[in-house]
Amino acid sequence: MGGVKVGAGAAVSIQSMTKVETSNVSAVVSQIKRLKNAGCEIIRVAVKTQVDARAIKDIKKKIDIPLVADIHFDYRLALESIKSGADKIRLNPGNLKNRGEVEQVAKAAGKAGIPIRIGINSGSIFTNDERRLSAEAKKAKAEMTNDARIDTFVKSAMRYVKHFEELGFHDIIISLKGSNVSETVEAYKKISGLCDYPLHLGVTASGPYDTGIVKSSIGIGALLLDGIGDTIRVSLTADPVEEVVAAKRILSSLGLRRFGPEIISCPTCGRCQVDLQHIVEELDNKLSTINYELSTKAPITVAVMGCEVNGPGEAREADIGIAFGRGSGMLFKKGKVVKKVTAKDAVKELLAVIASPATI
Amino acid sequence: MGGVKVGAGAAVSIQSMTKVETSNVSAVVSQIKRLKNAGCEIIRVAVKTQVDARAIKDIKKKIDIPLVADIHFDYRLALESIKSGADKIRLNPGNLKNRGEVEQVAKAAGKAGIPIRIGINSGSIFTNDERRLSAEAKKAKAEMTNDARIDTFVKSAMRYVKHFEELGFHDIIISLKGSNVSETVEAYKKISGLCDYPLHLGVTASGPYDTGIVKSSIGIGALLLDGIGDTIRVSLTADPVEEVVAAKRILSSLGLRRFGPEIISCPTCGRCQVDLQHIVEELDNKLSTINYELSTKAPITVAVMGCEVNGPGEAREADIGIAFGRGSGMLFKKGKVVKKVTAKDAVKELLAVIASPATI
Repeated sequence: MGGVKVGAGAAVSIQSMTKVETSNVSAVVSQIKRLKNAGCEIIRVAVKTQVDARAIKDIKKKIDIPLVADIHFDYRLALESIKSGADKIRLNPGNLKNRGEVEQVAKAAGKAGIPIRIGINSGSIFTNDERRLSAEAKKAKAEMTNDARIDTFVKSAMRYVKHFEELGFHDIIISLKGSNVSETVEAYKKISGLCDYPLHLGVTASGPYDTGIVKSSIGIGALLLDGIGDTIRVSLTADPVEEVVAAKRILSSLGLRRFGPEIISCPTCGRCQVDLQHIVEELDNKLSTINYELSTKAPITVAVMGCEVNGPGEAREADIGIAFGRGSGMLFKKGKVVKKVTAKDAVKELLAVIASPATI
Repeated sequence: MGGVKVGAGAAVSIQSMTKVETSNVSAVVSQIKRLKNAGCEIIRVAVKTQVDARAIKDIKKKIDIPLVADIHFDYRLALESIKSGADKIRLNPGNLKNRGEVEQVAKAAGKAGIPIRIGINSGSIFTNDERRLSAEAKKAKAEMTNDARIDTFVKSAMRYVKHFEELGFHDIIISLKGSNVSETVEAYKKISGLCDYPLHLGVTASGPYDTGIVKSSIGIGALLLDGIGDTIRVSLTADPVEEVVAAKRILSSLGLRRFGPEIISCPTCGRCQVDLQHIVEELDNKLSTINYELSTKAPITVAVMGCEVNGPGEAREADIGIAFGRGSGMLFKKGKVVKKVTAKDAVKELLAVIASPATI
């Protein structure tokens, strides 16, 4: 899709979504450039009017990552977005009026050779169904068990998948985002057993930054640990750059991608004789300003440990590390003690090694 | 243990560890009080000298949550901590000199009626074994596959468990913390299939705050999702209060405990016509200053959504919620639209409902 491979063993890719009006081309482009610099590989824009759909043409000229048009309610917005050169359409088929509208979008996407994401959210799937429900059915739904809710969620997605298959359209990716972490994980696990299409992972409406990070890490992380998921979007009520940074942290925590050295540092305790928190924060800040993708030989794990309990072990296992004792520490390179360093010089010494990977 | 039940279906409890010298009683007590106020239910202190061990007596007089003595290298520190009234001993049996020392600690703990945590860390387990390894064995270890590493880790813990059982000591809790998330999760999954003792979950040396939160959320969260884990400790190279706050977020994200209303908010996109990020941040800040454990009738989910796509659905499913449209929003209580509110008044209106749960 627009040069980025999703699924079939490709690296798990990182997505985000712009948070300014899509018709404001300069604002959208500037946000996409910030996001791309942060590591975003696929960008989605909300298309709520024909003006938005036409703006995609101008946006596409100024960016170099694939663009996904996010469509709800009006299938004509999808058709216009495809005309404008969108690289993928995200559709919630349940909020289109009928199967005929879905069919027109599938036909246009097929002709353009672009994929469609069937993107179901817990917050809308039940709302869509709601319209067609009687008062009794609504009451029954309110009393549904969690398992029944998850089943409804998954069945709804599979019904749409089947519809696309009947139309001869197979260039599908699926998402099943719930605002509840456990339901989201269960839903993805279920659908991954029912079909082989790539899955776009995310926990929707995950809340403000600090809780959103936790919910997204658990939901996306637990699925990736189980080998489920091909592309991820962390949703945060925050600057979208934070979503991309969090996504990178999730992928590197699991060893699925590597974006720079990983810091292994202990929480410290009454044993620690140096201001480890300060040292680690300084190192973290310095490292985040360097683009490590340039140097593939750079060390990938840097341990900074506060005492003799786990310090020597972690420092020895890391590519480079310092295990502190009383006031000073031992610098390790690839498991071997190199020299004694003071707490004051620790960051400088580590950065020097990182800058000259040949010395490791 | 000291009034807190761990395991056998008890609520998953939250632990942390002090980060000041244990012999500095006033500093330790003041940190424990801050941690308890934040939600910490079990506290651990590092015992690295006999002075530390004796300080436990004075600390215990001034706190009202159970205290765990963290012991490494010297079994006599465990004996002295038990004498001082420690409510539990954390031991890494691998770094004691021999089985006789372990036996003395088990005997004293049994007599005092307190449990022992067999706490193995990836950073120390291999270091301990290292001492006894030949150069060839070291090389073999360095070339171990991940699976073999995890096996060694789990087998090592089970060997210690068996030793305690042979001594007739069964008041055991186990931890198997690795600095690598996937290995940690695999190790806990394996051991949970091998024995029925309660498990203390954590990812060790997880790094600075922002990455530590991600690693701990994935590791601890994935295990809890699988029904594994009885007590948790989030390790962060940061203020220990952050560890407790993160632990509460993990547990409430999974619906395992509830510490206050949960905010469901969308990430916003080009559809959103209000400054949702600001509204959510203000609401989050206000909510965090109120102790919601006092009012069990307070709403538990508060949705704040930016547009008509998922907004009405999430707002309707939450106990209370606002779904914004163009400039204003609809306030929902228990699924029913109550009134129109402006973006400016949104936080005030939500807080008013939260403060008077009877009106919902």
